[in-house]
Amino acid sequence: MEEEKVRGKAELTGWPAKAWSLLSATRSESPLIQCITNFVSMDLMANTLLSAGASPAMIHTADEIPDFTPHARALCINVGTLSADWLPAMKLAAQFASQSGKPWVLDPVAAGASGFRLKACLELVELKPTVIRGNASEGVDSSHESTDAVEAAKSLAEASGAIVAVSGAVDIVTDGRELLVLTMGCP
Amino acid sequence: MEEEKVRGKAELTGWPAKAWSLLSATRSESPLIQCITNFVSMDLMANTLLSAGASPAMIHTADEIPDFTPHARALCINVGTLSADWLPAMKLAAQFASQSGKPWVLDPVAAGASGFRLKACLELVELKPTVIRGNASEGVDSSHESTDAVEAAKSLAEASGAIVAVSGAVDIVTDGRELLVLTMGCP
Amino acid sequence: MEEEKVRGKAELTGWPAKAWSLLSATRSESPLIQCITNFVSMDLMANTLLSAGASPAMIHTADEIPDFTPHARALCINVGTLSADWLPAMKLAAQFASQSGKPWVLDPVAAGASGFRLKACLELVELKPTVIRGNASEGVDSSHESTDAVEAAKSLAEASGAIVAVSGAVDIVTDGRELLVLTMGCP
Repeated sequence: MEEEKVRGKAELTGWPAKAWSLLSATRSESPLIQCITNFVSMDLMANTLLSAGASPAMIHTADEIPDFTPHARALCINVGTLSADWLPAMKLAAQFASQSGKPWVLDPVAAGASGFRLKACLELVELKPTVIRGNASEGVDSSHESTDAVEAAKSLAEASGAIVAVSGAVDIVTDGRELLVLTMGCP
Repeated sequence: MEEEKVRGKAELTGWPAKAWSLLSATRSESPLIQCITNFVSMDLMANTLLSAGASPAMIHTADEIPDFTPHARALCINVGTLSADWLPAMKLAAQFASQSGKPWVLDPVAAGASGFRLKACLELVELKPTVIRGNASEGVDSSHESTDAVEAAKSLAEASGAIVAVSGAVDIVTDGRELLVLTMGCP
Repeated sequence: MEEEKVRGKAELTGWPAKAWSLLSATRSESPLIQCITNFVSMDLMANTLLSAGASPAMIHTADEIPDFTPHARALCINVGTLSADWLPAMKLAAQFASQSGKPWVLDPVAAGASGFRLKACLELVELKPTVIRGNASEGVDSSHESTDAVEAAKSLAEASGAIVAVSGAVDIVTDGRELLVLTMGCP
């Protein structure tokens, strides 16, 4: 029933089974996930991770990263309410994750909102995120359809080496070569 | 049915019709609204604007304001969890809004809580907010009835040039000359 | 009915009656409570205090503390999303509370997450919190049962002079001599 909702290549390539396996492992291992995220959805991110069985830690100051980040299994960085005093911690945590081969996700919210933010996002992309997550139009509005973003996503994946996941009415996931299209999203 | 709930001068002066027209325009035009607000209700402010059809952006650092604020259609500033490192962004964004004739709303939460906060609120008032919004008693408690606040609201409106909106069991809106009293509020 | 849910020594020592009396006083007096807390649950803390009848104020900058804290009836400090720029306000507010004999609660969330955080928590404990609140395992995960924490709680209470409250499947409250065990908690 759940699997029938997955469309596109998902059924063919066995992604649903793999995704379920990863979700099950998250629940059984309760991995520690460090999040440096925005003020608006910090509680939602923590509660979503908890509901998935993970152990979230919203630790955002550079003073704690050398001690803490080595213990985390993964890292999420979301620049939604970015400011200059948070950026060093984002970069330091990303360096720790990259150097130790830990997966880390970058959500470059509204990357084009300002020169300051765009520069920060590009610096973070250079620190080799495992996944870059975005909305179909990662301006501050999301007026574009996510299908329009396929080529941009592929280009970003090729240039950055990251898996790029674009959410929207149609969700897109690509590593620059393979493309996964899911029609179960919401606009 | 909805209109019958509006009391006072509202029915006589056609405010409900005008308010509905503005709400409809918000929904159709989805204006970009910059919010520099407090940590407690940041998600609520974003979700309320989204539910009204607007496009909220919680952008609070002075580094982004020269690039971003010119694209916003309106600005909300709420000093609920004010600190010295957020104040320059508030003032800079307010200057941008005032200079370009964009509407901006100041919510001087608990203005009297400290000398620091009172000074900050007065500096923001000098930057010509379009609307000043407050509770009936803008101390940290709201023990006063909002009807007690009519004279204070009129004085503030005259002194500042802003429309003053005071919420409470009775909501008051005044530009210093006209007075709108709505009895559909909650204490 | 409610009282029957309270287990352990609670019924014997009359704690439920005292707790209810304090809750009733909170509702009738609506005391002003200053909170310097984390970004994740700041709204929840404010709303919980409001629902209990108190008047919460999330005021976290050292610039406001000399003016504001003397008016507060109690203080809550939670280090969940600690950073170096918030610590001076926490310490200053704690000093004001201690010096004037006001109750203040310290929640040393994830005290062991980093050397920076542990040092901050120890400095705050030296400022004589009335209550130290923690989870059964105040690491970032809570894998330990709270009953394991009884001895640690007693030691901390003796060393700090604070009442120590440890929540978990079993809640523990101790001043180092008396021990209250409540089995109405959740894991």
